[in-house]
Amino acid sequence: MALRTVEQYYESLKDLHPKTYILGQKVENPHEHPLIKHMLAGVAETYALAQEPEGREYLVTESKLIGEEVSRFVKFYESRDDLLAKVRMLKFLAQRIGTCFMRCTGMDAINSVGIETYNCDQKYGTNYYERFLNFVKYMQKNDFVVFSGVTDVKGDRSLRPSEQKDPDMYLHVVAKNDDGIVVRGAKIHQTGSICAHWGLIVPTREMREADKDYAVCFAIPVDAEGLIHIYGRGTLEARELQDCDLGNINYSKFAPMVIFKDVFVPWEQVFLCGEHEFAGPMVRNFGNYHRHSHGGCKCGVGDVLIGAAALSADYNGLPRVSHINNKLAEMLKTTEAIYGCSIAASVEAEPTASGIYMVDPVLSNVSKLYEGKELAEVIRMMIEIAGGMVADVPSDKDFENPEIGPLLVKYLKGVEGVSTEDRVRLFRLIEKLAFESRDIVSNIHGAGSPETHKMTILRNADIESKKKLAKRLAGIREN
Amino acid sequence: MALRTVEQYYESLKDLHPKTYILGQKVENPHEHPLIKHMLAGVAETYALAQEPEGREYLVTESKLIGEEVSRFVKFYESRDDLLAKVRMLKFLAQRIGTCFMRCTGMDAINSVGIETYNCDQKYGTNYYERFLNFVKYMQKNDFVVFSGVTDVKGDRSLRPSEQKDPDMYLHVVAKNDDGIVVRGAKIHQTGSICAHWGLIVPTREMREADKDYAVCFAIPVDAEGLIHIYGRGTLEARELQDCDLGNINYSKFAPMVIFKDVFVPWEQVFLCGEHEFAGPMVRNFGNYHRHSHGGCKCGVGDVLIGAAALSADYNGLPRVSHINNKLAEMLKTTEAIYGCSIAASVEAEPTASGIYMVDPVLSNVSKLYEGKELAEVIRMMIEIAGGMVADVPSDKDFENPEIGPLLVKYLKGVEGVSTEDRVRLFRLIEKLAFESRDIVSNIHGAGSPETHKMTILRNADIESKKKLAKRLAGIREN
Amino acid sequence: MALRTVEQYYESLKDLHPKTYILGQKVENPHEHPLIKHMLAGVAETYALAQEPEGREYLVTESKLIGEEVSRFVKFYESRDDLLAKVRMLKFLAQRIGTCFMRCTGMDAINSVGIETYNCDQKYGTNYYERFLNFVKYMQKNDFVVFSGVTDVKGDRSLRPSEQKDPDMYLHVVAKNDDGIVVRGAKIHQTGSICAHWGLIVPTREMREADKDYAVCFAIPVDAEGLIHIYGRGTLEARELQDCDLGNINYSKFAPMVIFKDVFVPWEQVFLCGEHEFAGPMVRNFGNYHRHSHGGCKCGVGDVLIGAAALSADYNGLPRVSHINNKLAEMLKTTEAIYGCSIAASVEAEPTASGIYMVDPVLSNVSKLYEGKELAEVIRMMIEIAGGMVADVPSDKDFENPEIGPLLVKYLKGVEGVSTEDRVRLFRLIEKLAFESRDIVSNIHGAGSPETHKMTILRNADIESKKKLAKRLAGIREN
Amino acid sequence: MALRTVEQYYESLKDLHPKTYILGQKVENPHEHPLIKHMLAGVAETYALAQEPEGREYLVTESKLIGEEVSRFVKFYESRDDLLAKVRMLKFLAQRIGTCFMRCTGMDAINSVGIETYNCDQKYGTNYYERFLNFVKYMQKNDFVVFSGVTDVKGDRSLRPSEQKDPDMYLHVVAKNDDGIVVRGAKIHQTGSICAHWGLIVPTREMREADKDYAVCFAIPVDAEGLIHIYGRGTLEARELQDCDLGNINYSKFAPMVIFKDVFVPWEQVFLCGEHEFAGPMVRNFGNYHRHSHGGCKCGVGDVLIGAAALSADYNGLPRVSHINNKLAEMLKTTEAIYGCSIAASVEAEPTASGIYMVDPVLSNVSKLYEGKELAEVIRMMIEIAGGMVADVPSDKDFENPEIGPLLVKYLKGVEGVSTEDRVRLFRLIEKLAFESRDIVSNIHGAGSPETHKMTILRNADIESKKKLAKRLAGIREN
Repeated sequence: MALRTVEQYYESLKDLHPKTYILGQKVENPHEHPLIKHMLAGVAETYALAQEPEGREYLVTESKLIGEEVSRFVKFYESRDDLLAKVRMLKFLAQRIGTCFMRCTGMDAINSVGIETYNCDQKYGTNYYERFLNFVKYMQKNDFVVFSGVTDVKGDRSLRPSEQKDPDMYLHVVAKNDDGIVVRGAKIHQTGSICAHWGLIVPTREMREADKDYAVCFAIPVDAEGLIHIYGRGTLEARELQDCDLGNINYSKFAPMVIFKDVFVPWEQVFLCGEHEFAGPMVRNFGNYHRHSHGGCKCGVGDVLIGAAALSADYNGLPRVSHINNKLAEMLKTTEAIYGCSIAASVEAEPTASGIYMVDPVLSNVSKLYEGKELAEVIRMMIEIAGGMVADVPSDKDFENPEIGPLLVKYLKGVEGVSTEDRVRLFRLIEKLAFESRDIVSNIHGAGSPETHKMTILRNADIESKKKLAKRLAGIREN
Repeated sequence: MALRTVEQYYESLKDLHPKTYILGQKVENPHEHPLIKHMLAGVAETYALAQEPEGREYLVTESKLIGEEVSRFVKFYESRDDLLAKVRMLKFLAQRIGTCFMRCTGMDAINSVGIETYNCDQKYGTNYYERFLNFVKYMQKNDFVVFSGVTDVKGDRSLRPSEQKDPDMYLHVVAKNDDGIVVRGAKIHQTGSICAHWGLIVPTREMREADKDYAVCFAIPVDAEGLIHIYGRGTLEARELQDCDLGNINYSKFAPMVIFKDVFVPWEQVFLCGEHEFAGPMVRNFGNYHRHSHGGCKCGVGDVLIGAAALSADYNGLPRVSHINNKLAEMLKTTEAIYGCSIAASVEAEPTASGIYMVDPVLSNVSKLYEGKELAEVIRMMIEIAGGMVADVPSDKDFENPEIGPLLVKYLKGVEGVSTEDRVRLFRLIEKLAFESRDIVSNIHGAGSPETHKMTILRNADIESKKKLAKRLAGIREN
Repeated sequence: MALRTVEQYYESLKDLHPKTYILGQKVENPHEHPLIKHMLAGVAETYALAQEPEGREYLVTESKLIGEEVSRFVKFYESRDDLLAKVRMLKFLAQRIGTCFMRCTGMDAINSVGIETYNCDQKYGTNYYERFLNFVKYMQKNDFVVFSGVTDVKGDRSLRPSEQKDPDMYLHVVAKNDDGIVVRGAKIHQTGSICAHWGLIVPTREMREADKDYAVCFAIPVDAEGLIHIYGRGTLEARELQDCDLGNINYSKFAPMVIFKDVFVPWEQVFLCGEHEFAGPMVRNFGNYHRHSHGGCKCGVGDVLIGAAALSADYNGLPRVSHINNKLAEMLKTTEAIYGCSIAASVEAEPTASGIYMVDPVLSNVSKLYEGKELAEVIRMMIEIAGGMVADVPSDKDFENPEIGPLLVKYLKGVEGVSTEDRVRLFRLIEKLAFESRDIVSNIHGAGSPETHKMTILRNADIESKKKLAKRLAGIREN
Repeated sequence: MALRTVEQYYESLKDLHPKTYILGQKVENPHEHPLIKHMLAGVAETYALAQEPEGREYLVTESKLIGEEVSRFVKFYESRDDLLAKVRMLKFLAQRIGTCFMRCTGMDAINSVGIETYNCDQKYGTNYYERFLNFVKYMQKNDFVVFSGVTDVKGDRSLRPSEQKDPDMYLHVVAKNDDGIVVRGAKIHQTGSICAHWGLIVPTREMREADKDYAVCFAIPVDAEGLIHIYGRGTLEARELQDCDLGNINYSKFAPMVIFKDVFVPWEQVFLCGEHEFAGPMVRNFGNYHRHSHGGCKCGVGDVLIGAAALSADYNGLPRVSHINNKLAEMLKTTEAIYGCSIAASVEAEPTASGIYMVDPVLSNVSKLYEGKELAEVIRMMIEIAGGMVADVPSDKDFENPEIGPLLVKYLKGVEGVSTEDRVRLFRLIEKLAFESRDIVSNIHGAGSPETHKMTILRNADIESKKKLAKRLAGIREN
């Protein structure tokens, strides 16, 4: 198959039965649930676009592993161009979907795990890398959606995994036998878990000797025995439950919590198990890659924010106002910096021992830092340009009411030539872009939090060599 | 009565029947509707607190007009101390309610209208001021809630009221007779209209001769014939509709749209009618006062944001982390600047001809500009401190499910000594503080938008005298 | 005398012979040195303005201590009104002088020492307070300039005073006898030391038992035996040395280093000596007061920055350009927040045991934090508005050259109606305002550095009570 | 020759006699003047580094035009890699020189003129491009320094060139004959004019039909008859005049004003003369290229700022303080965004008709916008980290004084293991980095001002396509 159609994607989900709870209810067909189906639609769109000429350019590539065309979402980054192509693909998709499409965590995890399984084998003579290549080939041949399970619930943040009162606050191995391992724990913020076919589970932090049971990496089908997906509430759910006022009329994002209730994993799906020194690099690789991914997708969403803001100015009758133009330029400043630093992180990437290329960590973390810290201001400016109507537009259902509908059409009219309905649609989109908590919180906490990015930048920026530059210019002799 | 108890407030609403639509439905008892009752609760709390010793200090004052104790919400600002007391009262209430309590627009409009009815009478020999004093006495004696109708729908923003294709895009007089006037139009973002007893309707901008039918100010009961209140959607409505996961467990804000479908207003309730040159000052006064009010209440909400952020650090096990302390200090920097400039605007207030004191407009607008531009960053920092759980906490209903409830209690546990339930309550509150669109948009657009504040600052800052200072120091002679 | 005229001030300096080094030379008459005389002029202007009607309102007050009119610069803060009057005086002076006038450190130190000598006497039965009142009376009767020596050189910043390898890195008592004490050490950044009559020396940090020799406070004449003033270089000295291109044609700031080479201090001038627990409060009081002072003077300088920027737009032919107006409003936002928070810190001041009022520390530190962090952006905006000419205007001497002078007059002309000479004067003033290092660094480090302000804010902001607010709203019960 | 040694550079200057005025004096040997020689040294260093292995990698390339190795400073941008190589070269040089090295304006102008002479010839059949290639070959063969004259004095900024009262406020053709043209006018901020061999003069803005005499581009030797260079004052000149306390011990920047007093230019040096529609593109190309150049050099200077700040923390005894690390990360955020966007602008470059590649204008302008708006904050943070000593360190001459020198060595000591002399050298460097007006103002106004960058971003960002993205997601049909 290698390239799945959108119909094949939907079809494939029918065979999957992830154990799912939504708002306190066990749900039999989660893929059809009103709070899930718009999330699925974003994933589906990535399949649809891969079949169209423009999307194909971005989404389809060749795999050396299987010698076939594959989705870029399941390919290794084998060159700087692959990394550039990734950023541009994600920008392209985000411009069309306007929110998360939930396939990047898997892509980034595949590359992170690829690097470290190789390194681990080199050090310990394990055969994780070969196993992992088999897994990747299988993903490629079936064009599967992979979610990546990184973030543990963490308990008391001041304590290491092995120091927690409850040992399950980080996912860990609780049993081993000849066939495989049994794991227990919980991963939160699992972008797209219910939309996926497989999960690739990665440690969430560096581990020490004492934490070695927590240094575990493996793949798992989303409906494996013992896996439980619990829906995490977003902000605009009344709209989906009532099927109106959606804002983004097709797509939305979600991030369930996934509990591992003593889940068995056969050895061929295990890619790290106790070699604790590779846990840290694995998650740091993931972080650097995933911040790099955000540089593409969040710039793409940024283009939607800017377009929505500019359009609202038109619809309000203020198309060429100086302060609005100033704000649009400021918005572009941030979104293009996010994108530009991600492009630059691709150009300055270097190959690892495995042959997989690692992005420049300073630049990819700088990109994410702009997202985490400055994108909130871009959104604020969009609201400022759009006006107060973002807060309190009446419902589609009010427009349908024969008594007040016509009054609303009359009074919510903006500039001539634009229907009230379209103006209201735009305000709803802006509301969705500004207030969907999963998107906004992802800007800040997705792929790690700003403080993590700062630490990563400092660790990689070679401050010592910069001190030498200053010394030389000041006439200070090195000792 | 002069001071109404909370029971009397609820009782009084039973006599009111505002024509109300919510999500496409005409609602007979809007005060009891799940999407309204939490809004009412905030107003009710202002009555309750006025009966308690601490609240009394802030809320109760003496009226010279009726010679009785009255609520500060219906009193004129007769001194700098009155203005200081207002700011402190609003901060006190916002700390306890955590959102809007919907009585300030009326208070600020009463003072704005007071100044200009006096000025108009001086110029034209009208008797608006006397009429208005009678209205204010009536409000004081009954301790009514007054909402202020300022913001028109505005149509094409590039056109003046009289230039709009549809003449109703700004509220205006469509008929007059010996008994009164008939008005038509619509006011949006009507904070608290359904919770109030009366509305005080004020023009939304300066008017010219051609716009004189739009230069109209009057009072109206909320259930007057022809008045229609239409609920504007907020972001977190699924919670109120399901009565769980409320975040702020008692209070919320809303802002309906109010349509005036040929509403009759008797002359004794009319306080401006055609004297167009007073429309601008009336709304500018209102703006300056209301920005000054925000200086109190938004600092109070800011204290809740800061407290919630600090508490989340505790609950996550990170009570004394350097970068978190740094953020708390930055958050305080903004909230205290908002408050400090409002306090300073009170101290530098000056009396108008009517005897009512006008706040310093530069300082009150600077206060609001910090709110409009910087409070978003305070909220972003709160989210950054709290962590990703703000985005996707499972529902109370999941906790009640016997199969997954215990797992959630186990896995969402933070630091020892704090129950998972309390930790989740806190994340819910933070979600509410960060994502309730009416609050967030009010930060930006309430009492006018940042660009309005900037214009007001520039107009009042006496740039010419500052140029003279520069000239003297540079040795440039004045011509 | 109590109120000295400007002539009397200059006359009084003739009797003072502070041992002074400038650029490697011992200077006999420092007060006349080209690098000093413009600094003196700013101090002198405070005497001159006190004799004029407008300045008198700001500068002259009544002393209860001596029952005479005195300069506000040597008076205790005995009420909130005194604190308001201080802020307004400093703004008034800074608007006219455009830089530091070097009398505030003394004023703020007098009040800080007043509070803690009182407290120390209460605890230990010492008689510092009485001694100190005598000193203050003497300052009042003679209308002296007092500089305050706070900042020690500090050596290795990670070590406490008593831990330093060289014990002299903080000023300390090296000998004591019946007549007095002998002190050794060095104080840097001594704003105005050479312009003053007396110094009031205060510890620079909290001290512990081991540091008690460093817990010393005393007064000293500027030309005491063993005191050495060493000129610290500023940035624009070539102008003063050549007596042209001054920018601010009359005034400038400086900050020498003062070395105490075993200086004897008689007991009647000693106000703390070993009671280490009062060292911290003394300097913290000073910090809070002096940040409050900056709220006045830096807003005054800010008015000059804004005036100069607006004037440069006029002179360039761009008087009403939208982006320039936007920047002027942003500049005002910052300068008025600095002022507003200082005004508010006065209004929310509380009396100490001594009767001297202490400003609200949160608000005074917030004011200074805006100065330290945001005033740099105000200056950047001034440069942005003025244009590139700020960097490289030819000299007055070029204008005097008959060959190129006329060409410069021709080519540096801006808008009609403004002479090239005036335009150049303005660019020079802007250069001075933007690049005089003592002023710019004072914005950041004067009265402590931003991190100190943040710590002070956090320590005083009562975060615990804010947590309680959040708990109540979230429905979390207090244990 | 093609690659000149540093000795050959100095030798070549002996043949040049640019007419030069400094501080009102005509100077015969400007290259040796104390206010010029440190500027020359930076240029000279570019020659020296081209002869060293590491520098060679960055600086030396192959010219297709002359088939020899040439300096990258005189080469066309013939590929994306050329543009990447430029950015990296400029970063490398700026790290070593710590200020402007004055060869980039020429390089960028060569490329800008190359594009438009080609376009003009295509439209009008002129032969500017061939002439220009000859000029470029001559520059390449001789490895000349070229300064670019762009910025006119502009007179009243609200008027176009042909509308000015004095027609000479923009440089223009005042006569023509068979041999060439005569030009009059003045160019300001002429980075490096006295260090150069030739100038390449370009219009400063778009021109219309009426302005066609102002649409002129040509090359000119720096000592052509009628050219006058007038030194523009910087801020730290006393240091160079006294030859001490230099900060950056070798290098500095300057920017004279160059007056064209009826200068004759032979036709073979004229590259545009009246074809007004190419004036705008020429300067816009230059702007986009030069903003792209700043992305390299200002990141390099930024590394020095960061290194100096980090080193000062070490020297003060505060090597691993949390708030300092936080600031270093924030500083990196800005400098790396400046660099990253410039790298990305190279990668997204496109070829023009001439074959010369044009950088992506949105990204190159975003890079410069970060420099113009945010680099000031990087410098402020450097000062904040370094401490107050930046403002007022005594002079080297004080250290040489036997009486106070030892006291200064004692008291200005920081951490053990670092000599006081080195600590002072570092403070001096920081002072130079923070207060040299030509550098700081260049950050803001070099290559155009922030408002120009914003306009360029908006004009190139294709807002219309972004509106379409929003429409599609909101469900708004295109008409």
